[in-house]
Amino acid sequence: MTRIDIPEGSLFGLANLPYGVFSTPGTAPRVGVRVADSVVDLAATLGDDVFAQPSLNAFMAQGRLRWEEVRRQVTELVSGDLPDDAVHPVSGVTLHLPVEVADYVDFYASEHHAANLGRLFRPNAEPLMPNWKHLPVGYHGRAGTVVVSGTDIVRPCGQRKAPDEAAPTFGESKRLDIEAELGFIVGTGSPLGSTVPADEFADRVFGAVLVNDWSARDIQSWEYVPLGPNLGKSFATSISPWVVPILALEAARVPLPGQDPEPLPYLRESESWGLDIDLAVEWNGEVVSRPPYRTMYWSPAQMLAHMTVNGAASRTGDLYASGTISGPEKHQRGAFIELTWGGKEPITVKGEERTFLQDGDEVAITATAPAAGGGRLGFGEVRGRILPATGTER
Amino acid sequence: MTRIDIPEGSLFGLANLPYGVFSTPGTAPRVGVRVADSVVDLAATLGDDVFAQPSLNAFMAQGRLRWEEVRRQVTELVSGDLPDDAVHPVSGVTLHLPVEVADYVDFYASEHHAANLGRLFRPNAEPLMPNWKHLPVGYHGRAGTVVVSGTDIVRPCGQRKAPDEAAPTFGESKRLDIEAELGFIVGTGSPLGSTVPADEFADRVFGAVLVNDWSARDIQSWEYVPLGPNLGKSFATSISPWVVPILALEAARVPLPGQDPEPLPYLRESESWGLDIDLAVEWNGEVVSRPPYRTMYWSPAQMLAHMTVNGAASRTGDLYASGTISGPEKHQRGAFIELTWGGKEPITVKGEERTFLQDGDEVAITATAPAAGGGRLGFGEVRGRILPATGTER
Repeated sequence: MTRIDIPEGSLFGLANLPYGVFSTPGTAPRVGVRVADSVVDLAATLGDDVFAQPSLNAFMAQGRLRWEEVRRQVTELVSGDLPDDAVHPVSGVTLHLPVEVADYVDFYASEHHAANLGRLFRPNAEPLMPNWKHLPVGYHGRAGTVVVSGTDIVRPCGQRKAPDEAAPTFGESKRLDIEAELGFIVGTGSPLGSTVPADEFADRVFGAVLVNDWSARDIQSWEYVPLGPNLGKSFATSISPWVVPILALEAARVPLPGQDPEPLPYLRESESWGLDIDLAVEWNGEVVSRPPYRTMYWSPAQMLAHMTVNGAASRTGDLYASGTISGPEKHQRGAFIELTWGGKEPITVKGEERTFLQDGDEVAITATAPAAGGGRLGFGEVRGRILPATGTER
Repeated sequence: MTRIDIPEGSLFGLANLPYGVFSTPGTAPRVGVRVADSVVDLAATLGDDVFAQPSLNAFMAQGRLRWEEVRRQVTELVSGDLPDDAVHPVSGVTLHLPVEVADYVDFYASEHHAANLGRLFRPNAEPLMPNWKHLPVGYHGRAGTVVVSGTDIVRPCGQRKAPDEAAPTFGESKRLDIEAELGFIVGTGSPLGSTVPADEFADRVFGAVLVNDWSARDIQSWEYVPLGPNLGKSFATSISPWVVPILALEAARVPLPGQDPEPLPYLRESESWGLDIDLAVEWNGEVVSRPPYRTMYWSPAQMLAHMTVNGAASRTGDLYASGTISGPEKHQRGAFIELTWGGKEPITVKGEERTFLQDGDEVAITATAPAAGGGRLGFGEVRGRILPATGTER
């Protein structure tokens, strides 16, 4: 038998217990929980088929009471002796996409990010659009290109047209960027024609992950009028492999920074709350930004209420993300287009001047939050490396 | 044994043979093929498990050679005697959503539609955006709210703000509209980091359906800047239950109306082609429009090539639609906002003046195309009825 030693200060202590999907050589992907630097095989220990599956969807669909029950079981389980073959070092397993993504919606919930992009893209107009403070603006992204951390990102090709060019050209993106975001995963869906009130958030949303919504700014700026981003974003969206349960984030709840004007009733919560999560963006190993999630304008529950207020169904595995997290300070911006002000103000990364991503660059986004009982919990990381474009001759 | 009688002029003769998913009372949904007014049970006759499933996805994933083989088998099968219990009158079966939709992308490929909407929404500017003739503009819609014909549509609620109002209000959509479209269903996907050349269309795309992309224009016009349509569209998208094989549409191929400027190389085909499909839009039983698919600017193959040129993966079950089909004439417009010019020029439907949809209204879109060997084939219909909004008090 094995007992997991949880070092003082571990970001994966008993107050966290995130779920993921892992495999070891020669075995099928199945559900595990991370404790310190170990992965505990839930299929082998809890004896429930929902954990012997290659995604969390079946477990998530069982609903909040079951999430609470399993969390209690897992807490007890990992505090005691475990069969040797049910515990694996995290360094020895392969981590897979933890959920089968149903629909993917990306919001735009950071006032600082939206205002920065407004200033960059529309320098002679109000930074925020008239609708921005009335509703969480968002759009649907490509669910089929959500990939797990560690997946290499091939530089996309596409059409770009600079303002001074007469016609668009085809080629590789020269302005490849990141967006550091937080994503929420729906556990229990809602049927077509019904709505999800903001106060039902905790009954519906299973957990949270880190998201890097890779963005080709040159492709995006040419294509996005009037129907929004498409090819500039659809080539890849990376998420972290560990889904931190919403149940683990109670201690991270903080008041929102404040909403003015007061939102319409369907966007009000009994007690409105944000999350005190500190992100860090590493570019080739150097931290270049520390976006603070607590500065987000729209709350996680408001985004869910908005997404369903028209009667749209939600499903187990729906992923909705916050949009880029940018704080008020320059070193808190969650996208390189903001950090380098459209590429005009390079930053120094490992001694080199950089604006957008170069081939071979690697970006890792990490995050921590206050945990119940003191200390902090971790989200792990979402990491990706840029590979050279293929097929530029077309 | 039963032999199916195919009347002269049937839109569901041997040149069509569309696939769908059906059930009879007390039985599970499975794959069938429509012949005249009958549905032939393929699970019962072809003895292959891929047809004993509640969607076409497993069959579609087998690829083009298999689609051709099964089409030959089915042609022979339905021309001979069939077991009595393998043939059902179409009026006696329930038709289900034929595919498990992976990602849903909606394009904007009709020049007349895009120009009309440009004139309506931006009266003092060029009708077409600068990018429109360079790339098929499109966006991702909500896959989880694609529903089969016959599903009632609950009038959506949401935020709307008229230009003369100081602040948005919440309530039911007052400008509920349709969009008559053609949709293409991907059979065999392509991996992340690869592209699908336009000439691979027939290897990748399994079939076509009719699409009604219900649109709440008041919600859409307030929300859509800068990230595109979201809640104004995501409440429901209806598709017809019969998937017409691309193999059945060879005789419907026509040249495109012409593209100027010449598109970039990745959008060129060895032989560019559109489809000569005649749609009809019935509003409460009266035909109010006859949109001609042959007038579409961008071809089905170009849309697929564009969607994947950035390396985005495609998957079995991906649905991409053409966007509203509008011809040059007023009676060829595929959306009521165009037919009634933003609601300012009502049309007469069954003796009543109408602009946008009222509760209880029913819309059916039908289509036919030339069939191999002469005659025509049918797409069946996509139909939906508007139910009153619920939850307007929020």
